[in-house]
Amino acid sequence: MTVSELAALVGGRIEGGAPGAAVRGVASLHDAVEGDVSFLANPKYATQVAQTKATAVFVAEDAAVSPPEAGGALVRVPSPDGAFAKAVPLFTVPPPVREPGIHASAVVDPAAKIGRGVHIGPLCWVGPNAEIGDGTVLEAHVVIADGASIGENCHIYPMVSVRERCRIGARVIIHNGSVIGADGFGYETHVGPEGIKVEKIPQLGIVEIGDDVEIGANTTIDRARFGATVIGHHTKIDNLVQIGHNVRTGPYCGIVSQVGIAGSTHLGTGVMIWGQAGLAGHLTIGDGVEILAHAGVAGDLTKPGQYLGAPAVPKREALRVFHAPRAVERLKEQVAALEAKVRALEASPQPPVQEA
Amino acid sequence: MTVSELAALVGGRIEGGAPGAAVRGVASLHDAVEGDVSFLANPKYATQVAQTKATAVFVAEDAAVSPPEAGGALVRVPSPDGAFAKAVPLFTVPPPVREPGIHASAVVDPAAKIGRGVHIGPLCWVGPNAEIGDGTVLEAHVVIADGASIGENCHIYPMVSVRERCRIGARVIIHNGSVIGADGFGYETHVGPEGIKVEKIPQLGIVEIGDDVEIGANTTIDRARFGATVIGHHTKIDNLVQIGHNVRTGPYCGIVSQVGIAGSTHLGTGVMIWGQAGLAGHLTIGDGVEILAHAGVAGDLTKPGQYLGAPAVPKREALRVFHAPRAVERLKEQVAALEAKVRALEASPQPPVQEA
Amino acid sequence: MTVSELAALVGGRIEGGAPGAAVRGVASLHDAVEGDVSFLANPKYATQVAQTKATAVFVAEDAAVSPPEAGGALVRVPSPDGAFAKAVPLFTVPPPVREPGIHASAVVDPAAKIGRGVHIGPLCWVGPNAEIGDGTVLEAHVVIADGASIGENCHIYPMVSVRERCRIGARVIIHNGSVIGADGFGYETHVGPEGIKVEKIPQLGIVEIGDDVEIGANTTIDRARFGATVIGHHTKIDNLVQIGHNVRTGPYCGIVSQVGIAGSTHLGTGVMIWGQAGLAGHLTIGDGVEILAHAGVAGDLTKPGQYLGAPAVPKREALRVFHAPRAVERLKEQVAALEAKVRALEASPQPPVQEA
Repeated sequence: MTVSELAALVGGRIEGGAPGAAVRGVASLHDAVEGDVSFLANPKYATQVAQTKATAVFVAEDAAVSPPEAGGALVRVPSPDGAFAKAVPLFTVPPPVREPGIHASAVVDPAAKIGRGVHIGPLCWVGPNAEIGDGTVLEAHVVIADGASIGENCHIYPMVSVRERCRIGARVIIHNGSVIGADGFGYETHVGPEGIKVEKIPQLGIVEIGDDVEIGANTTIDRARFGATVIGHHTKIDNLVQIGHNVRTGPYCGIVSQVGIAGSTHLGTGVMIWGQAGLAGHLTIGDGVEILAHAGVAGDLTKPGQYLGAPAVPKREALRVFHAPRAVERLKEQVAALEAKVRALEASPQPPVQEA
Repeated sequence: MTVSELAALVGGRIEGGAPGAAVRGVASLHDAVEGDVSFLANPKYATQVAQTKATAVFVAEDAAVSPPEAGGALVRVPSPDGAFAKAVPLFTVPPPVREPGIHASAVVDPAAKIGRGVHIGPLCWVGPNAEIGDGTVLEAHVVIADGASIGENCHIYPMVSVRERCRIGARVIIHNGSVIGADGFGYETHVGPEGIKVEKIPQLGIVEIGDDVEIGANTTIDRARFGATVIGHHTKIDNLVQIGHNVRTGPYCGIVSQVGIAGSTHLGTGVMIWGQAGLAGHLTIGDGVEILAHAGVAGDLTKPGQYLGAPAVPKREALRVFHAPRAVERLKEQVAALEAKVRALEASPQPPVQEA
Repeated sequence: MTVSELAALVGGRIEGGAPGAAVRGVASLHDAVEGDVSFLANPKYATQVAQTKATAVFVAEDAAVSPPEAGGALVRVPSPDGAFAKAVPLFTVPPPVREPGIHASAVVDPAAKIGRGVHIGPLCWVGPNAEIGDGTVLEAHVVIADGASIGENCHIYPMVSVRERCRIGARVIIHNGSVIGADGFGYETHVGPEGIKVEKIPQLGIVEIGDDVEIGANTTIDRARFGATVIGHHTKIDNLVQIGHNVRTGPYCGIVSQVGIAGSTHLGTGVMIWGQAGLAGHLTIGDGVEILAHAGVAGDLTKPGQYLGAPAVPKREALRVFHAPRAVERLKEQVAALEAKVRALEASPQPPVQEA
């Protein structure tokens, strides 16, 4: 499809670029390569239009932008995101559809309860008393252990393990390799005259995951010592995240890749934690707190707002920490100057002591 | 079961709360929700009794505590942890029991050696010359590759891979998705007139895991370049931990979630490493060293004690680092005050120079 | 085999140690234990010879070293690395060979295209329209989803998932449990009068992996929102690494364990990123940049060289950050001394004001 054909399809007007150039894909302005069509909906990204490598860019009729420097065309349309939404299905492939049915190679325990319209892919294992809700898809190589339950219309990808008795809500997506319900890390160590003894503390609880949760790939969420580790409704968790035993997250939290949350820490509603941050155990993190990337949280955070650094402090304070070395350099110069002046003052002749 | 029934069962005396309230679970004081019974064994947690949401709390007959503010009952007993231990089985479900036998869907190589009383779950693969010790459980979807050996009475969870020739001791637990014996990260890079050439260094060694080790979920322990990567007896490793090739840990170490230990670093006995800490390669970490969360260890640590920060230093020094920005603020004020005073001194009239 | 037998085999001359001692393995000087043979090729490691526990060490005929203090022998040879290369096969076992063929327990969709000489191990799933190139090995328990393609002579280890339509080049190695092509982390959050709404942004792109790439265990590389997440030729990725959607790496990059790279960040050629470093999204990292362990990169890095700290800065500046606390201590002393001197100057009698 050429730029002109695409412009005709969305009722747009071409400005600059090459109308005959081929369009083969869709992309954001930043990510686009030659052959992509992109779009500018939010004026705050207007500066990206000049730099984009896209072959065509949908922009509003009155957008104050010029065609990309790399030679792409602007296509002026009434609604840039509407035009883009029309273009996306032309250049993308939807995910595979999984028809209801149980693959012959899957091992489903006779005591498992399988809902209507369920897809169980090749080489899955569904254990005794496990329950799979209506319309749920288990892709190939999924393990649902004894007595675990999966809600309706979930999508569970290959190599996921849901351990015994854990409970997953409705419309939950779990990506490949994540582990729901492995034992938490808990031991009692006795140091006595016969040496060290390390005893495992049984982890007898479960994991409970709310509705509309999404969990990335290779993430681990440990079962509680007692009771439940809880992930609130609509919470979204990225890849390689560690959630310790007895953690509870509120609804609408976001937990980005490689974050670690130690045992028994509780998150409020809408808590956002960016990549690689770590939270100590037994903390309380209040509603609306945002913990920035790479932070190390060692104490409760109760006020909403952004926190940064290790130990994490409000962002403004953290920036002071980051700028401390520059302040130290300035102080060094000031102190050296003062020392010179004081030396000069000390060297200047003193008046004779006059006694009254 | 009501609070009174529970109190009767353990021979306790109720104080406060609602004797008719239902008890449905067990929990620690911090984690308890309504319906849970908890306990206070160690007086240092006495302040948690007031805050707990537990419906009943076992406390010692002479414990100086009042009933929880949220309305729970105290149940005074001679031994609070004894009473709690009696309550636990009433409200928890033990893990599933795996009977000896090989599931029909498992693929066990004819040249594998399988001990007595072994359970091999659905869809496992056990390769040629692999050995599985007496009483060991392989849950569903476990891969034990060619010539690997697993000791007696181990418990290996789904999606675990033990690669070729690695050796696992007795009573070892490995949680879902962990990888024992993937290749270490090793390359030789040559930059010559024909460009860059990156050659893989073959990783010909193995991993050797001692007795009574536990390994969490999605952890990776790389095989040695030559010889063995060694995990000492009774060492406990959490989830998502990276152990590089040729690392050796002593016995009784604890390695918490998301820690990374680079190649050829050696840990002594009883080394404790908290979450997200990272250790560079080729280091020696002495007996009894404790590396705190999020630390970055760049050099040998030989003295026992706590280390913190990146680069990690003894905890006392690290706290000075954390407080440096506050010290800088104070210095700024002091220097400004000094500058004003020196300006005043310089402005004051100088005595006439008197020649002798 | 004894030290003398080994020396005879490589035409070497023994110096010190016990010629009759048994040699059972090979190792680097640092990693060697009793019974190992090691070697010194690069004189910069000469000091390790004294400390090594190796039983025998190949060294150059004119190397200025004495036998190991622990009692090992030197074996003087014309080429120490040549001699070592001869010894390696005597004491190591090569990886298992996988013969061409499809295991009876593997599930291969009839619409998959399987090349010549391919090995498909037990319990694999290869989906419809997937393509497996000539000579490629899929070990046991590999999932290649719908329409994904794997190049020639690749080696894919157990528990790896390659998701729908992703494309892997030739001679690629992927270790156990890695996930290629899970959805990127992308949502649109609307906060309105009816509350919060979090909508998933469909992730319609793929992952494209170049030739001669190696990927460690339990690493995750997310599919693009649109287009492709791209890993350049000859790039080597370690374990537990997170690569976000729409990331692009150049060729010849090295990405060490537990690194995280957020979405749409682009790496140039030969970028090296050490363990646990994190990169924010939408950054540009230039050719030849080296990001040191544990760094947190928050902005573009365009000049080649080493970067350290969080936020990452050129290494020289980072060291100043690390030394700031010491500088603060020195400043405190200087300021205290100045304050004392200024107090003394202020206390000294002032000359009478002389009016003209």
